[in-house]
Amino acid sequence: MSRYWLPKGLRSWRGIFFTALTASIVAVVTVSIVSFPSLVEAKKNKLRTEVKPGELDDYYVFESGGHSGEIRVLGVPSMRLLKRIPVFNIDSASGWGITDKSKAMLGGLMVGDTHHVHGSYKDGTYDGKYVWVNDKANSRVARIRLDVMETDSIIKIPHAQGAHGIFPQRYPQTDWVVINSEFRTPLENNGKGNFEDASTYEGVHTIIDAHTMKIVCQIQVPCNLDLAATDYQGKYSFATSYNSEGGATISQMLAKDRDWLVVFNWDAIKAALKKGSYKVVDGVKMIDGHAGTGIAIYIPIPKNPHGVNISPDGKYAVASGKVSPTASVIAIDKLADAFAGKIQPKDCIVAEPQIGLGPLHTTFDGRGNAYTSLFIDSQIVKWNIQKAIDLYQHPKEGGTAVVDRLDIHYQVGHTMASMAETKDADGKFLISLNKISKDRFLNVGPFKPDNDQLVDISGKKMKLILDEPAYAEPHDCIIVRRDLVEPHVKQRFDMDANPDAVHKNSIERNGNHVTVRLTANAPVYGMQDVEVNQGDEVTFIVTNQDEIPDLSHGFCISDYGINFVIAPFQTKKVTFTADKPGIYWIYCTNFCHALHLEMRLRFLVKAKA
Amino acid sequence: MSRYWLPKGLRSWRGIFFTALTASIVAVVTVSIVSFPSLVEAKKNKLRTEVKPGELDDYYVFESGGHSGEIRVLGVPSMRLLKRIPVFNIDSASGWGITDKSKAMLGGLMVGDTHHVHGSYKDGTYDGKYVWVNDKANSRVARIRLDVMETDSIIKIPHAQGAHGIFPQRYPQTDWVVINSEFRTPLENNGKGNFEDASTYEGVHTIIDAHTMKIVCQIQVPCNLDLAATDYQGKYSFATSYNSEGGATISQMLAKDRDWLVVFNWDAIKAALKKGSYKVVDGVKMIDGHAGTGIAIYIPIPKNPHGVNISPDGKYAVASGKVSPTASVIAIDKLADAFAGKIQPKDCIVAEPQIGLGPLHTTFDGRGNAYTSLFIDSQIVKWNIQKAIDLYQHPKEGGTAVVDRLDIHYQVGHTMASMAETKDADGKFLISLNKISKDRFLNVGPFKPDNDQLVDISGKKMKLILDEPAYAEPHDCIIVRRDLVEPHVKQRFDMDANPDAVHKNSIERNGNHVTVRLTANAPVYGMQDVEVNQGDEVTFIVTNQDEIPDLSHGFCISDYGINFVIAPFQTKKVTFTADKPGIYWIYCTNFCHALHLEMRLRFLVKAKA
Repeated sequence: MSRYWLPKGLRSWRGIFFTALTASIVAVVTVSIVSFPSLVEAKKNKLRTEVKPGELDDYYVFESGGHSGEIRVLGVPSMRLLKRIPVFNIDSASGWGITDKSKAMLGGLMVGDTHHVHGSYKDGTYDGKYVWVNDKANSRVARIRLDVMETDSIIKIPHAQGAHGIFPQRYPQTDWVVINSEFRTPLENNGKGNFEDASTYEGVHTIIDAHTMKIVCQIQVPCNLDLAATDYQGKYSFATSYNSEGGATISQMLAKDRDWLVVFNWDAIKAALKKGSYKVVDGVKMIDGHAGTGIAIYIPIPKNPHGVNISPDGKYAVASGKVSPTASVIAIDKLADAFAGKIQPKDCIVAEPQIGLGPLHTTFDGRGNAYTSLFIDSQIVKWNIQKAIDLYQHPKEGGTAVVDRLDIHYQVGHTMASMAETKDADGKFLISLNKISKDRFLNVGPFKPDNDQLVDISGKKMKLILDEPAYAEPHDCIIVRRDLVEPHVKQRFDMDANPDAVHKNSIERNGNHVTVRLTANAPVYGMQDVEVNQGDEVTFIVTNQDEIPDLSHGFCISDYGINFVIAPFQTKKVTFTADKPGIYWIYCTNFCHALHLEMRLRFLVKAKA
Repeated sequence: MSRYWLPKGLRSWRGIFFTALTASIVAVVTVSIVSFPSLVEAKKNKLRTEVKPGELDDYYVFESGGHSGEIRVLGVPSMRLLKRIPVFNIDSASGWGITDKSKAMLGGLMVGDTHHVHGSYKDGTYDGKYVWVNDKANSRVARIRLDVMETDSIIKIPHAQGAHGIFPQRYPQTDWVVINSEFRTPLENNGKGNFEDASTYEGVHTIIDAHTMKIVCQIQVPCNLDLAATDYQGKYSFATSYNSEGGATISQMLAKDRDWLVVFNWDAIKAALKKGSYKVVDGVKMIDGHAGTGIAIYIPIPKNPHGVNISPDGKYAVASGKVSPTASVIAIDKLADAFAGKIQPKDCIVAEPQIGLGPLHTTFDGRGNAYTSLFIDSQIVKWNIQKAIDLYQHPKEGGTAVVDRLDIHYQVGHTMASMAETKDADGKFLISLNKISKDRFLNVGPFKPDNDQLVDISGKKMKLILDEPAYAEPHDCIIVRRDLVEPHVKQRFDMDANPDAVHKNSIERNGNHVTVRLTANAPVYGMQDVEVNQGDEVTFIVTNQDEIPDLSHGFCISDYGINFVIAPFQTKKVTFTADKPGIYWIYCTNFCHALHLEMRLRFLVKAKA
């Protein structure tokens, strides 16, 4: 057979060799690209999106658990749930709401509705010390210590219902935390009015001292206040207001085309506090924040706005329309002129890009792009802020600031990019907190999980990495670089920081009150028999004396409805009435040792004679 | 240059061509194997170990949540947490412990300690209808409906403390459920004794009617009872007993070298019930199960045994030594002779392989291998049952039944393979529920997550696939094929199965009791104003009329500590005293619509005159 029917390159063995070599290389590359696109993509993005067994995550996520009342700690990129921190809920495992201290903090309430969780700041980025979270259900704010990841303090916000948007001061550090009341009520809510009074209801923007967890003051406004934000200069706080109508029914609340972004002037607030320009209501300094007072301005933005977020460069506040397909971009450097009356509040708006249906919250990549959640479209839309500003100044037929869209599954509420609420936004990951998961997971009955989706935003196009089901109802989150938190996190408690710490086992009787001080060392409690009399008020104080990291003990009194966990060097206390006579085994509920089952003691409640 | 320094195969272009071609093929294969070993391995095992976004899992996992008091539903192989089912705990999101029905079921208790969860059976495999779970803290048993994945019934086990091992009847179907009491107490636990009475304490093996959730009878035994199992013929139930000493302190409990596997004879129990051979204690039929009664036999097995599990072929019960490095294999077909007195109980033991330190629980692959968790060694050890039996009959120097060992991280308690508690054990996946995670996850403070590790057992060697952190404290689980559960699971409730279902909104007053019937349809409740008087007892009955799958509503009364979720077509009811006057906004806590925030109504509690 003549070989001259072959292409020229194959007419000699030398040609065949080079062709084969080239073909082989092409084949290897093609096989790699076709079979393993994710690998190639990941290399292109230089972003680690997988966490293998034994590897650690790159980010902590602090997620508000919605009406589960808790905070959750996740890892990114694995999206694994690393911890639940009970806050406003009752937690059988840790004994939250069961121990004396936690019970006192909760004050008899057993439900909460956490919405927004934000960390403490220094110079515009996280300092790794605390996070704060609101309870919309009962208008409370909690502070969580990040060194031990436990709730540290809970306070009630007076004159507020639906305490909702919360934000700590970002600069120079977190001295104040602000929180909005979403539901307007009579300021004196005494049940003496009627349903016709709605137009007289007020809202409050509350300032809390971040260190003492006391109320600094409240700013009284005529409208409801929704999401909150603070700027990067320590000058302003922000609140959206979706009910400028002052309505009480849904149709009333939807009447107007524009509602407000309310901006609070911190210098003016400090001056008012100094001058005494406030009234005192139930012991709280109440400052008038109505239009014209210089305390707040009301920027009209389209319709029933929801989220407000500040760009990491500190230049813009972005508020979204909810029932308008737009976001509004407010230039923060124009606010001073608006407060000074040199320009109108509306003149602070520098862009209103059309981005899609049901825009709720916006997050940022630190590269000039904004990512807004679209509830109705079930999308994350990526748009360029500068382009939106340019198009607002110089509108262009068919011009759009939108860069990319990603379908999510489904009905996204909040969305957050890594470090996006700091000046160090790094544009790597984004979490889309989707309220409805429908068909994305095995059917677990009529009440289904939410879907927390992780998205790679490091490239030009957004890329969905994984679906993570979540119990009701993750509301918002922050994604914090590991190096900002981990150095602060302890392996064990500081034992003697707690004056109750038990070093010596004892039973002490004082009238009909019995105090039992007990140590726990795997696999034994410090005493194996404790006797009290029926009707005694009994306090157990238990200290875990095991210093080995992760060696936690439980303390459960059978049939007495008491259980809690004690982490290494931790002390917990519980007080109850020993009203049922009998032998009740107290046992360790937290697997601690090969002889964990044998770690128990007898609690004898002697029957009344 | 002479080309004759080259190997012979490269001395012509033809040779070079074929060498290059071979090299290329080798290169492609090598690149694939080296870069993507998991892919190659997975293909080898034919086992899907990854779940991509949008894909569904192959198995449901029902996991007891330990002293969190809940049950969890996970997916395998993703290990994602698909749902929490509140059982013995208070749950702020779903309103478990808040609504009237759940509150009544919990009876004022707020903590629980779930240990063992098992499904309902038909002919030795799951029928997908129910799971049962124990509460060790307060000696209760709960039944969970799998069609809606909610707790259906909770009962208290009388005369029991530390209600621990639980198992449903496997054949011909689940008519009975057995549960063991781990803590021995005086049968009449009235607080009239003292600490010296320990030797008189008793334990009970309780039989529950699976359909009515009533106590059938209790078998009184002189020892404590730990884990439970039932056979595959409906003839026997099993309990380990680690305290044959009858001790009350840890040193007493460790005195003897052998404790017991107790076997209960169901035919004998049925005969005793029929003959009336029982005493009635507090209304419960109490059958004497002491040695010699024919009700139970006591097989001596090494030391402080913990788990007992039945091989999927129904032939063997395997109990592990906990503080002995052995497992004991009991031939179930010898039990009849032991009960008949033809052989000694100890003669039922057919193997006692040495497997490692701290053996706790055993699971099976359906191919004749057992996998035992080793708490002290932090390993799963795979061993062959037949080989263990052969070596017991014909001991061989250096002989071992052990086939493979896998290090886990760390301190494993329960372990379970897919479908391993049924005759359909499929030997694909194994979960190792590790109590201590130490360094495997980002540090989240002194109280760390457990580590649920997923292992591929489809091949000869076990292979660790992933680490999944878990909140305190997953105790045990079953891994159930998707096709056995999913067809039973509903998208919505059967609305009118609940006689309270609201079709018409109304407010009805009866003295000082007010009943409010309310519908919820996104984004509005059926009424926007509800007025009561201070001091009224108020019942809200709320029905979710949205039939769209996954469209759940919340119902939260601000400042009244009330919240619950209502899934599609579900009805929930809550009763409370309206003791605080004022306007209290009731709002939807479960994100349902673009106007979810506007879904609220005013609840006016008129002040007393």
